[in-house]
Amino acid sequence: MRYADVAKAERIRIYDVARVAGVSVATASKALNDTGRMTEATRTRVKQTATALGFRPNAMARALTRQRSFTIGLLTNDTYGRFTLPVMAGINEALVDQGVSVFLCGIEDDAALGKIHVDAMLDKQVDGIIATGKRIDRRLPVDLSDLPVPVVYAFTEGPADAVTLVSDDRQGAREATEHLLAHGRRRLVHVTGPDSFASVQNRAEAFRASAGQDAKVLYGAWSEAWGHEAVAKLWAQLNGPDGIFCGNDQIARGVVDALRERGIDVPAEVSVVGFDNWEIVSAATRPPLTTIDMNLKELGREAGRLILDLAEGKPVEPGIRTLPCKLVLRQSCGSDRVANRAEEEVLQEV
Amino acid sequence: MRYADVAKAERIRIYDVARVAGVSVATASKALNDTGRMTEATRTRVKQTATALGFRPNAMARALTRQRSFTIGLLTNDTYGRFTLPVMAGINEALVDQGVSVFLCGIEDDAALGKIHVDAMLDKQVDGIIATGKRIDRRLPVDLSDLPVPVVYAFTEGPADAVTLVSDDRQGAREATEHLLAHGRRRLVHVTGPDSFASVQNRAEAFRASAGQDAKVLYGAWSEAWGHEAVAKLWAQLNGPDGIFCGNDQIARGVVDALRERGIDVPAEVSVVGFDNWEIVSAATRPPLTTIDMNLKELGREAGRLILDLAEGKPVEPGIRTLPCKLVLRQSCGSDRVANRAEEEVLQEV
Repeated sequence: MRYADVAKAERIRIYDVARVAGVSVATASKALNDTGRMTEATRTRVKQTATALGFRPNAMARALTRQRSFTIGLLTNDTYGRFTLPVMAGINEALVDQGVSVFLCGIEDDAALGKIHVDAMLDKQVDGIIATGKRIDRRLPVDLSDLPVPVVYAFTEGPADAVTLVSDDRQGAREATEHLLAHGRRRLVHVTGPDSFASVQNRAEAFRASAGQDAKVLYGAWSEAWGHEAVAKLWAQLNGPDGIFCGNDQIARGVVDALRERGIDVPAEVSVVGFDNWEIVSAATRPPLTTIDMNLKELGREAGRLILDLAEGKPVEPGIRTLPCKLVLRQSCGSDRVANRAEEEVLQEV
Repeated sequence: MRYADVAKAERIRIYDVARVAGVSVATASKALNDTGRMTEATRTRVKQTATALGFRPNAMARALTRQRSFTIGLLTNDTYGRFTLPVMAGINEALVDQGVSVFLCGIEDDAALGKIHVDAMLDKQVDGIIATGKRIDRRLPVDLSDLPVPVVYAFTEGPADAVTLVSDDRQGAREATEHLLAHGRRRLVHVTGPDSFASVQNRAEAFRASAGQDAKVLYGAWSEAWGHEAVAKLWAQLNGPDGIFCGNDQIARGVVDALRERGIDVPAEVSVVGFDNWEIVSAATRPPLTTIDMNLKELGREAGRLILDLAEGKPVEPGIRTLPCKLVLRQSCGSDRVANRAEEEVLQEV
């Protein structure tokens, strides 16, 4: 159907189709749905009338009979959208071809606002809800465990028996560390965020598993300022590190800036790897950051596929699904040549 | 209704209420809607049954009779979400209390994807569509001019007879320039983005109107790298500027970094003002950026209020509505004391 037809239709209803075709509304409905008993001539006349009028079958009316609304609710407390936007893009990609639309509900950390949004979504008979947030070890401020619709948790904590998707912090941190080792870096340090985050602990453990159990880990804020401060601490001692794995790209940018201001060349003297691949930060760093991408768009796609399966009543195993991160090569670690060789080595190790 | 009741309800339908109350579906519906003829005893029995079963009146069913779905579609091609996220937050704020939910449809610059999303939204009988994007002088790659539902354009170009909201680039640029002048800066330069952008032209014109018609404007990319390059150009001459108004925060960050690396103190020797108030950039700059905020959240609120009015059939004047920007004070322009005095002067001038 073209837009012109839609416009002409001005919300043509089945009543109009029935009137013009000279049948009852019930007959018109049956004709269009290929159900009921009538002559083929009548069925054809109704269908032709519907086409001529530009009748758009009403999704809500269909939903009422099929018990599906072809809508999904996405709840998030990530106001920056840093994590939610790629998740959302993936969800949309998985659902748009199925005719499913997504309600985006930003609830910040406001339980009352969360309840209003959940009520509105239930009221509109969503087929399911995807909950997402800004960290994997915190729940949204609203209880979704007893809703009459299925729920998938993506990049936020859910109940033990829920369907939950998270990115693989350990594998991502291992890849970053192995990449530094593959560049011949041996004095490795991990500069990361607050140790109250599960992701910080998981990444630190994976870093030490590859770099050595006595390798240094410095905990601080998720900020550029902390990157500067960490470099000041590290270079207050005689032997600074030759490889720094940072807990996020903002810390990495601070580290790279602080090193340049000390006259220390990145990557010739020190290699740096970030985490997140937040392009506004990682691509603008001088040199641009080699970093870990959590593949949040793919995580969103998988969340979309799972909520569709659940909405259609297909069996889905509960539990936590861990999706792999990927290393994104830029210049903060070494030359492309070295980087590519390192990639091959990492691949061979897998 | 509490969540527990919803859960118990497991999508209780009006059929269930009718069956338990011992009436027809039609009678149950009329009883709950306070229409039709029946004894008060019957009406009360139906209502009590509905409450006892935890019946949730179906928004879709109500929409079918009221011709309202209480949903709004938001179309955007701003994949970064830099502009769309605050607009979206404002829209949600304006609509959530009215029980209206928002479909977010990211269409990038893909006309086919745009059409799929618009079809899906019309199919779900949205009450209206808000179109938004990443620049005010470009249309989305999908024609919304002949749809059977109202459309509001917010931070993207619409047809001449449409309802359109934009931020006031000229007033924002004027405030930035006046602020530099209020700090006693007299050798002003504007370092901005590509001159193919209407916003770039509007800001440059407003800058020259305040700073003088022969004040220098340098056009380049929307990037930190361009900020570095511009400083190299400006300081290749004998007398560098003492005040720089930048077209966005990324350029401003590049300018501030480049000045620091030349040993030029910001703000003691040169004052810098950005544009956008994109916090990840403006707050992390050393020193943090004084900048212009386009008030996109308020623009979103206004778009939400307008689309509601249109959906309810209230009269709304077509045309372009220009919303004011505001100056956000940080440290790149001067001390708080000076900044506050400047603010007062600016206020007195208005």
